[in-house]
Amino acid sequence: MTPRPDRDPLPDTGPRRHANPRPDNGPRPEADHDTRPGRRGLLLAGTAGASALGVGAAAIGLDRALRGSAPAPGMADHAEAPLHGQATLPFHGEHQSGVGTPAQASSTYLALDLREEVDRDGIIRMLRLLTDDAARLTQGRPALADTEPELATAPARLTVTFGFGPGLLERAGVEVPAWLAPLPAFEIDELQEEFCDGDLLLQVAADDPLTVSHTARMLLKDSRAFTSVRWVQQGFRRAHGTERPGVTQRNLFGQVDGTANPQLDSNHFDTVVWIDEGPFAGGTSMVIRRIRMDLDGWDEADPTAREQSTGTKLSNGAPLSGTDEFDHVDFEKRSEHGFPVIPEFAHMRRARGVDEGVHDEIFRRPYNYEAPPAPGSGALSESGQIFTSFQADLLGQFLPIQQRLADLDLLNLWTTPIGSAVFAIPPGCEEGQYVGQSVIEG
Amino acid sequence: MTPRPDRDPLPDTGPRRHANPRPDNGPRPEADHDTRPGRRGLLLAGTAGASALGVGAAAIGLDRALRGSAPAPGMADHAEAPLHGQATLPFHGEHQSGVGTPAQASSTYLALDLREEVDRDGIIRMLRLLTDDAARLTQGRPALADTEPELATAPARLTVTFGFGPGLLERAGVEVPAWLAPLPAFEIDELQEEFCDGDLLLQVAADDPLTVSHTARMLLKDSRAFTSVRWVQQGFRRAHGTERPGVTQRNLFGQVDGTANPQLDSNHFDTVVWIDEGPFAGGTSMVIRRIRMDLDGWDEADPTAREQSTGTKLSNGAPLSGTDEFDHVDFEKRSEHGFPVIPEFAHMRRARGVDEGVHDEIFRRPYNYEAPPAPGSGALSESGQIFTSFQADLLGQFLPIQQRLADLDLLNLWTTPIGSAVFAIPPGCEEGQYVGQSVIEG
Repeated sequence: MTPRPDRDPLPDTGPRRHANPRPDNGPRPEADHDTRPGRRGLLLAGTAGASALGVGAAAIGLDRALRGSAPAPGMADHAEAPLHGQATLPFHGEHQSGVGTPAQASSTYLALDLREEVDRDGIIRMLRLLTDDAARLTQGRPALADTEPELATAPARLTVTFGFGPGLLERAGVEVPAWLAPLPAFEIDELQEEFCDGDLLLQVAADDPLTVSHTARMLLKDSRAFTSVRWVQQGFRRAHGTERPGVTQRNLFGQVDGTANPQLDSNHFDTVVWIDEGPFAGGTSMVIRRIRMDLDGWDEADPTAREQSTGTKLSNGAPLSGTDEFDHVDFEKRSEHGFPVIPEFAHMRRARGVDEGVHDEIFRRPYNYEAPPAPGSGALSESGQIFTSFQADLLGQFLPIQQRLADLDLLNLWTTPIGSAVFAIPPGCEEGQYVGQSVIEG
Repeated sequence: MTPRPDRDPLPDTGPRRHANPRPDNGPRPEADHDTRPGRRGLLLAGTAGASALGVGAAAIGLDRALRGSAPAPGMADHAEAPLHGQATLPFHGEHQSGVGTPAQASSTYLALDLREEVDRDGIIRMLRLLTDDAARLTQGRPALADTEPELATAPARLTVTFGFGPGLLERAGVEVPAWLAPLPAFEIDELQEEFCDGDLLLQVAADDPLTVSHTARMLLKDSRAFTSVRWVQQGFRRAHGTERPGVTQRNLFGQVDGTANPQLDSNHFDTVVWIDEGPFAGGTSMVIRRIRMDLDGWDEADPTAREQSTGTKLSNGAPLSGTDEFDHVDFEKRSEHGFPVIPEFAHMRRARGVDEGVHDEIFRRPYNYEAPPAPGSGALSESGQIFTSFQADLLGQFLPIQQRLADLDLLNLWTTPIGSAVFAIPPGCEEGQYVGQSVIEG
């Protein structure tokens, strides 16, 4: 902000761009909690207003802002149309938001370690506090101890998703599920401890990066009496409104990435993702891996190598056996020379388990990361993917896929896992409860 | 991407979310260069489509994507409405874009140093190459040697702005303006060399972070035979569509920051920003300073201290002497105890030069930055502002402001400049020219 010649009288500049007065920044009215969404409706709440920006309003609003002219008659209604910054997703419910939620543009992952002196009661106090923060902030209201309430006014589909590491459950005196442990070591891994494991995960995602920043900071402030920061990862996807909703996004290699995901809001999604019995029923398992992508090496690969590495076309993500992105995949199809059109080392074929006669599925929610290069390193950037996947059965669904890919996957030439963690995502909670209450208190 | 069970036949999931087929990813048609924008029209090009997302289209598109249902009859037109990712700003013109352009959501700053062996001819070759890249990418077309052309399809108001440090001009045999030098040392500075100076600056800004990432990388690849990376800074503002266009944004302290800026597209803006004679006529001077913000310290300040530090109200950015953001500032107003309502140490009063009887102005285009904390540092984040300002006369406009703020400004308690650089922004160029041609070739 330095230097800042604020509030000059500016006698010579004509009317200021004042057409859209900022609303009062006091707390917003309570969100509409009366219409509790059902299982299917969970993801749809808030979307009606999510992009309710009329063509006329946008064009005229911007034009007016730039020219400083008075609003045209009859345009007031358009100018007052809600922006996507006001869109909210429910916090309470059967499942936590942020898993089956269409991926927001920005996501920050906070992994925290419990301080030595924090016991079961401390964990519960902390979770109550963080739950209250998340319940408010996701609805566009400041946290109770919010010192920058001015930054809490644009939730932009904010979700806060809690995950428990084995350390938290142990400390709380809760049995740790067998699957909740670091993944076995894979030969492809070059793990850096500063991106691995943790007692508590907070996934903070929204369509606005300032909202993510404010929320993450608020949660860190309220947790720091109980925890220390183990690692932080910041991810991005295409901005809200850059592409049509539902388009499968491309990663930093330019690949269409995510075509095979189970469709959100389907029975199939529920089967793949949600645990259906035991203490974590309604929850899921989360794998988060930081995968460095060798963009320079990738640039040297020719289009054929690139397409064969995944088994898909660069142009639109279609399987090499087909034409369109969602075409049925013909793994039997052979070239005129008799080789499989989708090679045996292709990522897609390996992940699916075609040649093992299986069919494993997970739900992926990937984000890009890009950090500036270390000074003097000669690198252009440190880039890659924050891979996250959710699956009901980590050992039965995720692990076989990861093992096959570690054994053989041409894409491994350009990708290196440098961070890895597993968390148990507890089910959602109702108002008055804290996230994880059913797990911790039984 | 690992693991990725792509292209499963998914016999049990019903229709896939296929309502919005991805367009062919080949090069897009040429942008409309025939209607070359005039001086005033420069900023308005592309805005008509910038947010052209109808209410119906957005709500229905998202609903459809989530439910996977077939499009409703008559909705095809809405579904095909352009998204803001397709908005472009002109590259060629009297001024470079990216200065008087309404600030995009994401901005990355690349500072490069010329390699020892690069001479005047090398500089010209490099600038031709980078100009060609920028001219294409800003219009949504891949660069000539683009190895990820799939990522060039959503310009989202992309601008690439070139700035020259003294080293580049010297090497090119061009006289270095007296003002093009590192700023004098200020007592408040704690400069880190890795965020200072540089021979060439590329400011890459767009409303989509993936577009910024791809563009920055493409420019770095095409410049690396000529330069090495000195520093990279990544900044963010509110996402496109989070708030109404033209609303003054808040910084990480929650302060409304930028009210006093000259209004875009006004004669006053031109006077404040553009150099009107000499080799840099049509260009400007740019200061970029990385200002660390002590968020923890700020959190401990009470609302009164916060408001007095700037002289403005937290709630809406109004001067303490007034009610609304753009109210006339009454620096003479006194409290019932006889003290100035806008204190003598207030940032706004110091920046303006009220008590020195002057009135200095610059144009600021600030971005937030937030980097994860260093592992084990105990910090929550490394946060602050990438301050950039543009002014016709660096010595006459910027320097007195900065000197006054360094001498006295309560806000200094919570802010520390840790990086600083000055660049000469050459004027814009016409098609067939390279950016800076008139400066380098006279």
